[in-house]
Amino acid sequence: MWQCLRHFLRPRTPLLLTPGPLSTSPYVRAKMRVDYPSRDATFSALTTRIITDVRALVNGNDKTVVALLPGSGTYAIEAMLRSSVATNDHVLIIDNGAYGARIADIAAQAQLAHTRQKHDPYVSLDLSAIEEALKSNKAITHIAMTYCETSSGMLNPYESVLQLGCRYGKTLLVDAMSAFGALPLSLPRGTHAGRLVIAASANKCLEGAPGLAFVIANPQALQATSTSLSLDVQAQYAFMQKTQQFRFTPPVQVVAACAEALRRHKAEGGVDARHKRYQKNAHILIDGMQNLGFATVLQDKDLSPIIVSFHRPPALDFQAFYHALWKRGFAIYPGKLLDIDSFRVGCIGHVFPRDMHRFLRAVKASRKALAKKP
Amino acid sequence: MWQCLRHFLRPRTPLLLTPGPLSTSPYVRAKMRVDYPSRDATFSALTTRIITDVRALVNGNDKTVVALLPGSGTYAIEAMLRSSVATNDHVLIIDNGAYGARIADIAAQAQLAHTRQKHDPYVSLDLSAIEEALKSNKAITHIAMTYCETSSGMLNPYESVLQLGCRYGKTLLVDAMSAFGALPLSLPRGTHAGRLVIAASANKCLEGAPGLAFVIANPQALQATSTSLSLDVQAQYAFMQKTQQFRFTPPVQVVAACAEALRRHKAEGGVDARHKRYQKNAHILIDGMQNLGFATVLQDKDLSPIIVSFHRPPALDFQAFYHALWKRGFAIYPGKLLDIDSFRVGCIGHVFPRDMHRFLRAVKASRKALAKKP
Repeated sequence: MWQCLRHFLRPRTPLLLTPGPLSTSPYVRAKMRVDYPSRDATFSALTTRIITDVRALVNGNDKTVVALLPGSGTYAIEAMLRSSVATNDHVLIIDNGAYGARIADIAAQAQLAHTRQKHDPYVSLDLSAIEEALKSNKAITHIAMTYCETSSGMLNPYESVLQLGCRYGKTLLVDAMSAFGALPLSLPRGTHAGRLVIAASANKCLEGAPGLAFVIANPQALQATSTSLSLDVQAQYAFMQKTQQFRFTPPVQVVAACAEALRRHKAEGGVDARHKRYQKNAHILIDGMQNLGFATVLQDKDLSPIIVSFHRPPALDFQAFYHALWKRGFAIYPGKLLDIDSFRVGCIGHVFPRDMHRFLRAVKASRKALAKKP
Repeated sequence: MWQCLRHFLRPRTPLLLTPGPLSTSPYVRAKMRVDYPSRDATFSALTTRIITDVRALVNGNDKTVVALLPGSGTYAIEAMLRSSVATNDHVLIIDNGAYGARIADIAAQAQLAHTRQKHDPYVSLDLSAIEEALKSNKAITHIAMTYCETSSGMLNPYESVLQLGCRYGKTLLVDAMSAFGALPLSLPRGTHAGRLVIAASANKCLEGAPGLAFVIANPQALQATSTSLSLDVQAQYAFMQKTQQFRFTPPVQVVAACAEALRRHKAEGGVDARHKRYQKNAHILIDGMQNLGFATVLQDKDLSPIIVSFHRPPALDFQAFYHALWKRGFAIYPGKLLDIDSFRVGCIGHVFPRDMHRFLRAVKASRKALAKKP
């Protein structure tokens, strides 16, 4: 009896203050307890609703392409590049952290013509360097960048780069993975309608489960023929438009969780409301951590409400600190910056200001407990 | 109160007699109610266990590469091709159904040198035609085929083709998606160690949730440099060996479900026991359906214990039949053969002989109910 029951009792897991996989609502996870037949009309209705909801999030219309791709967000970034950048095109890739670098790595491995432009990861993007590249290299047709550079927590000025792109007639490919659903994103209209392609994920700020990614664009932006059958935005979308079904076996539980997560996102008040909640989380976190003697790696104006990097104080052993916080119910992330010793705390997911206050108390208690140890 | 509760009450869903997504055990689904931190040691232990268990399923050793790829099985097939077939190689692709054809489509879109060899989808593979191709086309270095061709239900003679490959010094790439865990698969040893690469999925016969796929091989077989960063078997595996973590955000709930599914697979008695259960399911199904007047599309010797195609009797409206069965608690699949009007019933998943008997009663009742309608 106990053997049987224990499988269904919820194990104690910490609250995830991470860039994802992150903590989701129990209502979202509840949708994962069922096996859905993926070719039935009931399931098709779920996927159709996801497409409609995602279109609304970017101010799209019923022509807007929303390709749902099973798997990691990285697949969506590769599919976006392969489906936008044609043989004679050239992408300027902004690298100001690990995720910008990954876009360049994808382009390199896929043998897409590109220029990797390195930027200082610790200060705001140098827009004049981007403009200079557009002026000096006439081959450039696309710009690619991250919206929030999760490795540092840097909020990149995506709107300014989009405007620059529009001015010079270039298309922006934005890795909006950790921003989508909490930071504003809007497909351009009119003559600039084809100037933006978005790669995003159901996890992160939409607070769905990980395992489903999106590529979103107006059809004008998708001018390349992908040389990957699996990572082909146009084919994936065309099949779904025709059949209301996924081209390949979808992760049905993750899709159902995504539909519920989008419903709850809308009920909370959409992008604005979520942005406000995360911003509140971030303020409480940053103020509280500063009061406890932790300094942020970035300047205030570059901080995102998504994830924050803190310098590790020399006296603090990260592993011991990590475990002390885990014991108190929180999971944080190590740093991902190469030359600075840091750790990261996420503000996104099913996480509320009260959780941030609890977290600060846990940080205080953990430091105290660690200080006592010999 | 009711508003809140209804989210947590399990909705009534039919038993899925489909090739996947299929019905899984409630114990497997129970693992999906938690948010797992993907970079923590507790989660790393899960993924390490999956790799160990998968190796054991194919008689591998601790050198055997098991790359876990988030997403659909099709990704694993593309990754397998891209990571095995080098620039100067050439693949002979056996096409005797929709999934064989898909392997060829993947190769074509990825611009891999290949020959598509069409076979009659309704009779056993013509091994002499394959041998003829190997003799006449010296460029061929690889053979690719499906193990069970799910579009018809045909069981392909994978062992004979593997032996042929070994004899001629060719490497076999097998799409074992719907067979893995229920039909025997064993990596060759010694001089032939590099002669087999397997693409498989956590859903299907392992009875995990959909959203995770595998590429399995001895390292000798993986000689090509993938031109896709996302679909790169060696890089995916090397990163996991080094860090015990996924390279990109994993579908944590699906991974946890897979670990539990593998545990239950072992507890049931492994590949043999599962094969026997599915075979029992298939026998009951085929006998029962024949008694009810339904004829199988394939000859008895070609039938698999995975999924069975039946001719649609001219008087039977498929949509009405489908809905009548759904109402009685079963989901079946339409046919996927181009020139024959058929439907398919799966024998795999958390499905037992008693379910097959129930299904036959539902078929009888559905036909009776439909016959009564004007």
